[in-house]
Amino acid sequence: MAYKDEKLVEEKVFKDPVHRYIHVHDKVIWDVIGTREFQRLRRIKQLGTTYLVFHGAEHSRFQHSLGVYEIVRRIIDDGFSGRPEWNDDERLVTLCAALLHDLGHGPFSHAFEKVFNLDHEHFTQRILLGDTEVNAVLRRVGSDFPQKVADVIGKTYPDKLVVSLISSQIDADRMDYLQRDAYYTGVSYGHFDMERILRVMRPTEEQAVIKYSGMHAVEDYIMSRYQMYWQVYFHPVSRSAEVILIKILHRAKYLHENGYVFSHEPVHFRSFFDRTFELEDYIALDESILLTYFQVWMKEEDTIVADLCYRFINRKLFQCAEFDPATEYRKIGELEQLFREAGLDPEYYLLADSSSDLPYDFYRPGEENERIPIYLQMPTGELSELSRSSDIVDAISGKRRTDHKIYFPEDVLLEGKEQNPLYERILHMLKN
Amino acid sequence: MAYKDEKLVEEKVFKDPVHRYIHVHDKVIWDVIGTREFQRLRRIKQLGTTYLVFHGAEHSRFQHSLGVYEIVRRIIDDGFSGRPEWNDDERLVTLCAALLHDLGHGPFSHAFEKVFNLDHEHFTQRILLGDTEVNAVLRRVGSDFPQKVADVIGKTYPDKLVVSLISSQIDADRMDYLQRDAYYTGVSYGHFDMERILRVMRPTEEQAVIKYSGMHAVEDYIMSRYQMYWQVYFHPVSRSAEVILIKILHRAKYLHENGYVFSHEPVHFRSFFDRTFELEDYIALDESILLTYFQVWMKEEDTIVADLCYRFINRKLFQCAEFDPATEYRKIGELEQLFREAGLDPEYYLLADSSSDLPYDFYRPGEENERIPIYLQMPTGELSELSRSSDIVDAISGKRRTDHKIYFPEDVLLEGKEQNPLYERILHMLKN
Amino acid sequence: MAYKDEKLVEEKVFKDPVHRYIHVHDKVIWDVIGTREFQRLRRIKQLGTTYLVFHGAEHSRFQHSLGVYEIVRRIIDDGFSGRPEWNDDERLVTLCAALLHDLGHGPFSHAFEKVFNLDHEHFTQRILLGDTEVNAVLRRVGSDFPQKVADVIGKTYPDKLVVSLISSQIDADRMDYLQRDAYYTGVSYGHFDMERILRVMRPTEEQAVIKYSGMHAVEDYIMSRYQMYWQVYFHPVSRSAEVILIKILHRAKYLHENGYVFSHEPVHFRSFFDRTFELEDYIALDESILLTYFQVWMKEEDTIVADLCYRFINRKLFQCAEFDPATEYRKIGELEQLFREAGLDPEYYLLADSSSDLPYDFYRPGEENERIPIYLQMPTGELSELSRSSDIVDAISGKRRTDHKIYFPEDVLLEGKEQNPLYERILHMLKN
Amino acid sequence: MAYKDEKLVEEKVFKDPVHRYIHVHDKVIWDVIGTREFQRLRRIKQLGTTYLVFHGAEHSRFQHSLGVYEIVRRIIDDGFSGRPEWNDDERLVTLCAALLHDLGHGPFSHAFEKVFNLDHEHFTQRILLGDTEVNAVLRRVGSDFPQKVADVIGKTYPDKLVVSLISSQIDADRMDYLQRDAYYTGVSYGHFDMERILRVMRPTEEQAVIKYSGMHAVEDYIMSRYQMYWQVYFHPVSRSAEVILIKILHRAKYLHENGYVFSHEPVHFRSFFDRTFELEDYIALDESILLTYFQVWMKEEDTIVADLCYRFINRKLFQCAEFDPATEYRKIGELEQLFREAGLDPEYYLLADSSSDLPYDFYRPGEENERIPIYLQMPTGELSELSRSSDIVDAISGKRRTDHKIYFPEDVLLEGKEQNPLYERILHMLKN
Repeated sequence: MAYKDEKLVEEKVFKDPVHRYIHVHDKVIWDVIGTREFQRLRRIKQLGTTYLVFHGAEHSRFQHSLGVYEIVRRIIDDGFSGRPEWNDDERLVTLCAALLHDLGHGPFSHAFEKVFNLDHEHFTQRILLGDTEVNAVLRRVGSDFPQKVADVIGKTYPDKLVVSLISSQIDADRMDYLQRDAYYTGVSYGHFDMERILRVMRPTEEQAVIKYSGMHAVEDYIMSRYQMYWQVYFHPVSRSAEVILIKILHRAKYLHENGYVFSHEPVHFRSFFDRTFELEDYIALDESILLTYFQVWMKEEDTIVADLCYRFINRKLFQCAEFDPATEYRKIGELEQLFREAGLDPEYYLLADSSSDLPYDFYRPGEENERIPIYLQMPTGELSELSRSSDIVDAISGKRRTDHKIYFPEDVLLEGKEQNPLYERILHMLKN
Repeated sequence: MAYKDEKLVEEKVFKDPVHRYIHVHDKVIWDVIGTREFQRLRRIKQLGTTYLVFHGAEHSRFQHSLGVYEIVRRIIDDGFSGRPEWNDDERLVTLCAALLHDLGHGPFSHAFEKVFNLDHEHFTQRILLGDTEVNAVLRRVGSDFPQKVADVIGKTYPDKLVVSLISSQIDADRMDYLQRDAYYTGVSYGHFDMERILRVMRPTEEQAVIKYSGMHAVEDYIMSRYQMYWQVYFHPVSRSAEVILIKILHRAKYLHENGYVFSHEPVHFRSFFDRTFELEDYIALDESILLTYFQVWMKEEDTIVADLCYRFINRKLFQCAEFDPATEYRKIGELEQLFREAGLDPEYYLLADSSSDLPYDFYRPGEENERIPIYLQMPTGELSELSRSSDIVDAISGKRRTDHKIYFPEDVLLEGKEQNPLYERILHMLKN
Repeated sequence: MAYKDEKLVEEKVFKDPVHRYIHVHDKVIWDVIGTREFQRLRRIKQLGTTYLVFHGAEHSRFQHSLGVYEIVRRIIDDGFSGRPEWNDDERLVTLCAALLHDLGHGPFSHAFEKVFNLDHEHFTQRILLGDTEVNAVLRRVGSDFPQKVADVIGKTYPDKLVVSLISSQIDADRMDYLQRDAYYTGVSYGHFDMERILRVMRPTEEQAVIKYSGMHAVEDYIMSRYQMYWQVYFHPVSRSAEVILIKILHRAKYLHENGYVFSHEPVHFRSFFDRTFELEDYIALDESILLTYFQVWMKEEDTIVADLCYRFINRKLFQCAEFDPATEYRKIGELEQLFREAGLDPEYYLLADSSSDLPYDFYRPGEENERIPIYLQMPTGELSELSRSSDIVDAISGKRRTDHKIYFPEDVLLEGKEQNPLYERILHMLKN
Repeated sequence: MAYKDEKLVEEKVFKDPVHRYIHVHDKVIWDVIGTREFQRLRRIKQLGTTYLVFHGAEHSRFQHSLGVYEIVRRIIDDGFSGRPEWNDDERLVTLCAALLHDLGHGPFSHAFEKVFNLDHEHFTQRILLGDTEVNAVLRRVGSDFPQKVADVIGKTYPDKLVVSLISSQIDADRMDYLQRDAYYTGVSYGHFDMERILRVMRPTEEQAVIKYSGMHAVEDYIMSRYQMYWQVYFHPVSRSAEVILIKILHRAKYLHENGYVFSHEPVHFRSFFDRTFELEDYIALDESILLTYFQVWMKEEDTIVADLCYRFINRKLFQCAEFDPATEYRKIGELEQLFREAGLDPEYYLLADSSSDLPYDFYRPGEENERIPIYLQMPTGELSELSRSSDIVDAISGKRRTDHKIYFPEDVLLEGKEQNPLYERILHMLKN
């Protein structure tokens, strides 16, 4: 039997708190899960620094990846299979893409990518196509199979329906992470009737669409997403940890570039500082390694890197204040000046950060990052863009909401304000 | 106001998936949570290697500690407070002991303790009493307060009722971990009606007891515990990972003692290998550090440590077979001989492991490790040991169940059996 | 001790699936629950005919009433008590009003009220003030106490804060029914974080308000309400049963007024047909009595009442079609004509029904039925109407959505269309 | 296409709180659900009088029947189908038997059957085979099909595997009612991992068995059953209501037999009093009718029937005391004498009641009511009776637990004891 068709003698199940069980019957899927590149996702948290505010959010990208796979498997096996619009030859590539869509995520992904100017999707491609265990498994299916999986994830795969299951405004990725992140944080948002959505999802040539009768379940999903963004993903405490993390990496890079001699040499980072890293250097990274460095760097002589590491490891985070960049850019300038005068480097101790989300977007062809809208399949069979039928979705559709904050070490200012009148003045400015 | 009585201006709440919210109103509690020794518990998993079989079980001892605190807080504030048998002066020491009872746990606690012959309860005491942030906070309450907290955890505190809330056969520790571990693994065991148990718990001089009307809820709790032990805590896959972990540490110690030069020097371990470690060395350890070493050791020249680390990190674990030590000790001897002949060091590749649990025990005075039984408070007011009233508990009371397994690298044997007839013979012996 | 202050020796708890436990400590509350007028609510379903589409929705107004009481009790005892804006003298009257707010509901309330032109709020008042068991209990608190409870329910009570807990756009009534109806129907809508809302609810002189930090929980509650209305409360199958129910009662009244001799005399209804009923006649009614009559009326000679009763009892309901009254009023006229020609009385077999909901309304003073908006308490202390801060609520605020349907016996038309070309024509008109 | 093979154009789903969705694809099943005999189950509560103590337990046998059907459907379609031990020709008869197994239940089944010496299983058979709507549907499948369905329910069907799915110690009936009754009462017992049990259930010639690896899930199920019996099904308050109910029916029968003229004639009961009832008389009964009679009988001249009805309708139930029939039979005699002297008819006001349960039974061939044990399928393939492998099940296996109570109107005795010293004496005897 061809490898691609091999089944496990007995179906394997993973107990999963969100989907109850994750079912694996295909030998290929089982083998992919066993690769070191996939197992590495166990050492990368799904929500980065969020566990510092929602202590339950310690779950990894490993389980999210399994979850996305399971949702796609159900869509295909329980819903699409047998319908004329669905081509079952696409099943395996779709399942692999679902499982592997986050393969290239690095440790504390957003921060790491930002500092080193990297892109996790790029690394997903490289791991799929490079000399890796996962590539070896996929190649056994066919020599062009790794590329096909990469194309689905990269959204260049010709079968748009397949792509839409992994990357669209109502894809398996989002459906898993909303529920999973809600489960682990313990918030009451993030719940929607996924079983109903799966029941009303229909294949079309261009993308998966939703039967009209399921509109309310989709509304609920959109609202869940909206709530999760503002209640969890953009929580100011988690952003505070993230700005500190970014500044640790910045500082270490700066020190390295300026010839600083670390007592604990940043072996794992050197190639990133110098931009000479190989794929293997990237795969070798995970969050345990970053946390190990941060702990040893707490004892570095450089007080900035030592302080920031102490803050991150021991959760002595920065406080934040609201600010409006449109009207308060001058104030920032003044504050930077005051920080400098007070002996606090604003580069590391006065940090602006913005979060922004578009809960749902209709189609704006030609625009950058155009997002495929969700279509309802009307009783007549024709497709209608969601926001035309739903008042609620229409109301929030295309409306970007942005939140600007400025982070700073309130603890230092409060402790020192008796001695240092500048601290008092800074505090006053930040609070008003 | 005395520090011990200080309240936060606004009560703080932590969102918790198990207890919904964890409430902190006391300044002392808030300050303890903020110490680096307590924050360190975020980097130690509650269930060690269990996440390698139940992928959801990535939760830390940090959240379990908060959970135990919250349960004790509810017992005291919602149940005991105001009753004559309860002395509210004991409230703060009890809450602190609840929060800090696991403070001394090291990374992958059981394995680490076993190899280095340590005891986490001993370290809990040392951290509480040593030169630490947590000691500094507790000392602000009173110079003898750290010792009092240590005594409650050490079960030598004079108020037995207080001790029983943290350490007994129905304590807050167990009530939290059963529910929390069930939640994160996703298993359906581990649920019982804690709210009812809290409602029927009553203080007595010697210990907390349960009103007779709550007997069925306690039965359910005992059964949950029984199921969790055999379904989750003693799962063979997690034990497989644990025996590998133990052997990694053994091997590294052995190498160090025999003058092996590591390409990545085991800085964090040296003082443990030499038994010269200080408290600070212990606190500096966590699971991120172990995982970092294991990853770099995958490239050591010593093939045994490198192989074991590769196995642990990438979840290429050992398989297991049942064996009965009473009748099969000879077989083990033979197998060890065969392993040696086949070029596999049985010290690292043929590993026996036993799990054993006593789901509930009545009182057997004078016996080692005597365990305080659960008492029901009958309608007449007198106390009656649980197994006298409950058929079910009586049935399993005092019955130790033990499970013996032997672990080995089946993958190596299967791959090599064509070339090596000894492998075939070993496999045959292990499977029968 | 005054009766109003009497506590039960031991607090009573009711096991409740929605709130886990309902706690009763006050003797007055316990006594009210024991009255026959309150127990009667067990025989009136919370959701009328909805159980014919959501089979789980068989729950009664009895449990909803306990739920509303419990929510108010928590708001007061856990949140308001001790705050200067709250007067604890109002506690008992508020609890009683919460418990008794639905006391006057009749069997299949909406249908019954519509046919006999009654108003359940009016009957709540009469039961509270009349010669009833519940009045006797309340009078023991004070001679004016029944009137006070009635005033809170009637929204004429001087303390607006008290009224707002029972009747406002975010009151305990709505919070209970959304969650309870979701639980019993099994739909995934209807969930919101009530515990959080209770934590952020604050008393003010005019009404209960919500701390700004709880805005997202309130948004979620508003969305739950919106979804429950359209997914559950206005479900066309349940409305189909309701229109049939209305027509049964209409027909029975018509027959009575026209001297028809029932084989099973409508003893319980006579005084309603003649509008000579006393309070006791009303209290004597419940849904078991209506269902009993409908079953015996299935054997009446009058084919219309017999058929409609058979349909209701055995769930052979009418089908529906959409129609737009603005543009299709002529079509209705034509259809009525065709029905008559086809021998089907349109008065009983062609029934228009509209549902309409305003998910949230801001304040429009002077308008009929003005609804008090929800206010957020901003960090500065000032109050701000919800839709000013919430994009989502703003989007749906004040927007009435209406759905028009026409109900008819499709089964008759389909079965008879071969014989009767008029049926065919009717079907054609209804389907287009 | 043969009627038995007809599928609905689009699968119908019922939203179900316990199983999320109930799926109906077979036309036969859909038609059976639509019959008046099946719809009648909506008017019969699953748990009889239990709603008087657990107010949530207002759910009907209708939804339980759908639930049993759904579980059997999943066992067959997701588990058995395609395995050689399963014959798919038995699918439809098994599904129908699952759906219809409770069809013959009368109103407040146990009480009604006891008084009139009836047996609901007998009526299930008669409804299936008589001149009914459900018989007409089943006959369309085949002229012997109603009899086959009846045989499965009557346990005389030749295919023992089919019978075991509906009636065994781990059948779909029990799996549904434990979960459903737990859900509606809100108790935390009654939960077990049904999904796992379904996954490990295997067909054999004689019965469905459980793979060894699922033993712990079965243990949990047995324990759930044990807890539900003692916490819910045998709750003394619900038994108090039941003894009153029995006595109402007894009294009405007695009055009828003694020529009493009811002001509200017991039309629906006459044929039962006289034992001349036809099948149609039985089908015409439901709980709404009983509740209607009880309400009108509250005004009967006979004070006993009036009082008992008032008590039942308004939940003024009897209190209970423990008693041991083995040692206290004399005391009962004395009490009866005292009741008579005090003017209380002991026949109606001093009522003994016993509950008894056997949580699990191994096989005792030849004994009356022999119960088929649960078998585990060991890794070797052989079958092993559950209690041999499970310590816990072994502990409770075959152990009958019985609870004796005596019920009496404590309210009357307490109110009258000042006037009547006999009352005082009775109370004293009952309390000791």
